[in-house]
Amino acid sequence: MSECPNYHMSWADFQRHGRTLLDWLSSYHEGIEQFPVQSQVSPGQVRAALSPDPPSRGEDFRHILHDMENIILPGLTHWQSPNFFAFFPANSSAPAILGELLSAGLGVQGMLWATSPACTELETHVLDWLVDMLELPDKFKSSGSGGGVIQDTASSATLCALLAARERATDFMSNQQGYKGGLVAYASDQAHSSVEKAVKIAGLGQENLRLIPVDNSLAMRPDRLEKQIKKDREAGLIPCFVCATVGTTSSNALDPLVDIGRICQDEDVWLHVDAAMSGTAALCPEFRFIHKGLEFADSYCFNPHKWMFTNFDCDCFYIADRETLIHTLSILPDYLRNQATESGAVIDYRDWHIPLGRRFRALKLWFVIRHYGIEGLQFHVRHHIEIAQEFASWIEHDDRFELVVPPPLNLVCFRHIAGDDFNRTLLERLNQSGQLYLTHTRLHDRFTLRFCVGQTYTQRRHVELAWERIKNETAALEAD
Amino acid sequence: MSECPNYHMSWADFQRHGRTLLDWLSSYHEGIEQFPVQSQVSPGQVRAALSPDPPSRGEDFRHILHDMENIILPGLTHWQSPNFFAFFPANSSAPAILGELLSAGLGVQGMLWATSPACTELETHVLDWLVDMLELPDKFKSSGSGGGVIQDTASSATLCALLAARERATDFMSNQQGYKGGLVAYASDQAHSSVEKAVKIAGLGQENLRLIPVDNSLAMRPDRLEKQIKKDREAGLIPCFVCATVGTTSSNALDPLVDIGRICQDEDVWLHVDAAMSGTAALCPEFRFIHKGLEFADSYCFNPHKWMFTNFDCDCFYIADRETLIHTLSILPDYLRNQATESGAVIDYRDWHIPLGRRFRALKLWFVIRHYGIEGLQFHVRHHIEIAQEFASWIEHDDRFELVVPPPLNLVCFRHIAGDDFNRTLLERLNQSGQLYLTHTRLHDRFTLRFCVGQTYTQRRHVELAWERIKNETAALEAD
Repeated sequence: MSECPNYHMSWADFQRHGRTLLDWLSSYHEGIEQFPVQSQVSPGQVRAALSPDPPSRGEDFRHILHDMENIILPGLTHWQSPNFFAFFPANSSAPAILGELLSAGLGVQGMLWATSPACTELETHVLDWLVDMLELPDKFKSSGSGGGVIQDTASSATLCALLAARERATDFMSNQQGYKGGLVAYASDQAHSSVEKAVKIAGLGQENLRLIPVDNSLAMRPDRLEKQIKKDREAGLIPCFVCATVGTTSSNALDPLVDIGRICQDEDVWLHVDAAMSGTAALCPEFRFIHKGLEFADSYCFNPHKWMFTNFDCDCFYIADRETLIHTLSILPDYLRNQATESGAVIDYRDWHIPLGRRFRALKLWFVIRHYGIEGLQFHVRHHIEIAQEFASWIEHDDRFELVVPPPLNLVCFRHIAGDDFNRTLLERLNQSGQLYLTHTRLHDRFTLRFCVGQTYTQRRHVELAWERIKNETAALEAD
Repeated sequence: MSECPNYHMSWADFQRHGRTLLDWLSSYHEGIEQFPVQSQVSPGQVRAALSPDPPSRGEDFRHILHDMENIILPGLTHWQSPNFFAFFPANSSAPAILGELLSAGLGVQGMLWATSPACTELETHVLDWLVDMLELPDKFKSSGSGGGVIQDTASSATLCALLAARERATDFMSNQQGYKGGLVAYASDQAHSSVEKAVKIAGLGQENLRLIPVDNSLAMRPDRLEKQIKKDREAGLIPCFVCATVGTTSSNALDPLVDIGRICQDEDVWLHVDAAMSGTAALCPEFRFIHKGLEFADSYCFNPHKWMFTNFDCDCFYIADRETLIHTLSILPDYLRNQATESGAVIDYRDWHIPLGRRFRALKLWFVIRHYGIEGLQFHVRHHIEIAQEFASWIEHDDRFELVVPPPLNLVCFRHIAGDDFNRTLLERLNQSGQLYLTHTRLHDRFTLRFCVGQTYTQRRHVELAWERIKNETAALEAD
């Protein structure tokens, strides 16, 4: 291959170093419980250990791996530890890692069908599979007027949905003449911060995002939504977008889609449903109640990169009327024109999201679904929910603790009855121990601990151990 | 590890299948010239061969790889072939693939410093390195008021720059009260389509994007920019954003940054510089002239995933005043609050772009810089430019062909003198041969062939062979 000198790594060396990395990663995962889950470095510590200047000459790969192990590793929080109960999970799994390796190794681009047909067609195919696997409304399939696409995150999905809603409401004049104001968006006061971010980006402004109050279960109150929409119409404003959440980030609250959906239908308002983590539960028929009313939605997303064992980034975004989305985001300069696009027979995913270029992300999703099968995915999701519910029952039966809301699925929100300061200190001590990692939120204006069971490798024993540790740390704190 | 039944792939199997993949990828790259560069499948062909239904039960990994080889592979366009001269390159390299493998295997999140400190600090560190490596203005370093961040694509970078400019021009009132209109953006009529996309997304509207005419070299005319800005001011509009391009997609034209920068300074207009592919040339001192005037820029980006041997996605986006960007995009719900963030001592990259979650993309960039060293990167960039210039000289000395513009770096725009139809047919035949892949554009309103030399493994012999094939196909066509 090399008739002239070059600085490339040979493919033989690639194989050699790759094997070292595979071995290293296996050991890492097998021994991951030895590391403190949350990194214990202080700000600036990692940078201080890195070479201040870039290398003039290339270095041996072993030196790089040495620095990785000695400088980078201590600076990591181990999201793939089975003792990770923080935030929402960002899962990985062995078949997904292999899918990422293959995608990186092939290095193809899927911005147009023509730039790598299989990259587009496998994505469409797997996203259609998922409509069946989650029993989502058929309108989200590519065979009708809708379709699915992989976005990086639910934040980007929400933004794309809002942009399409903005254009539908202004007859595509915002795109053309500029946004003139007057549109209003709605979400519960528990919705994800990305709704606020999207509302700012799209130019609606934070003041035109109505945060609808919630009921005791922290789910959006449809009566308040309806009232607010009418109030805004009376003020001469145009309601254009509702984001309902299936499993809020703070507490996993499930907004009532049927009631919200009927209001959106009556009022001709775009309904986007954000099921970022919890959507995965619909793999199991007994949890499909979370999607009841989804037939009213104009768009929907869930993230296999959260709870479906597929490496980040992989958000599955579905739209009922793909033409509105494409019309909103399409651009077609001369250098992207090609026969396939002009034939109309293909999907060009560049028009379905913000970026132009795109990786072959469907590979890892395909690997995960084929490796686990529907049966395997269901098994692990059921197991997570089962052990989360057990954890909740332990909380319920311990007088020192209380559940803040009944946990609908795999996220348990609880607190010690001694008040905010106690809970804050308890959280700090638990996380500083390195034995587990959980995070907090505020619910009903009180400091609340979040315990989310969703990491790929979390089993009953990890949850049992976590409960022991929580009880021990609590006892120590009470004795202080 | 498994005290209960589970469906996970064991780490021993991960190693085994991973080795198979490493071997397969090595063979793929060593034999890549055997494949037709552009995929020859027709629309729907890949999907038709895939299983219509998702598998109920998990499958053996060997079956998945079998389908990958038999169904997916023929549907790929081989972006990593050294005979790929189309679009701009989307490079990969062995060390970058290993970086992606490691990043996928670690599966950490870098949305906050606290969610994996090393993920943030390595990114800041390597982006500071690149300021030195490309000799960019010091204001883009994190040590001052600026800083760099990895975005997915230049499209997203342009959008973030425009949003920051919109907020600066409206004193952050667009974010708060909603965008009220009146702002105008500018780019040359050769700028990337992502500027138009960003202008639509941010609510300015396509009609408020002024496409400034270009000179004979297809670079923006500063006199026309200045005139248009004054005209817009006289009409009561507010000029807020100029996107200058260092290496346009169609022809690699270099907008004159010094003149444009002075105008932006005088007029208090945000200057964003998009050097997506060509910025990499600044690794070599002799090509740093392309960035002359960059000291006037408020923001800048270039893509190591194009020409710096780093797998997609990896766009390096720099901003001179990071507070404006952060203020534009920040959100801080309770569930993301943490001590490190509140101390102000750390960077939380979630506020630097659209998505919330983020992969550990700095790893692959670090691997590439350390493997090649500055010397190795310079060598390959110089070699690409040298052989592209040779190709251009062959075109120049063949009476049947003409250069449409003198090629400043590694992109040669040329055509046969016989007119559009001839060139269109020539392009089709060349691409259908599978022996090479190039794309087209329209320049001075004529169909033009683009020949971009930037794929990691392209050497002189590939360019020589391409020229032979172009000449042979031309002779055959002329004889028709």
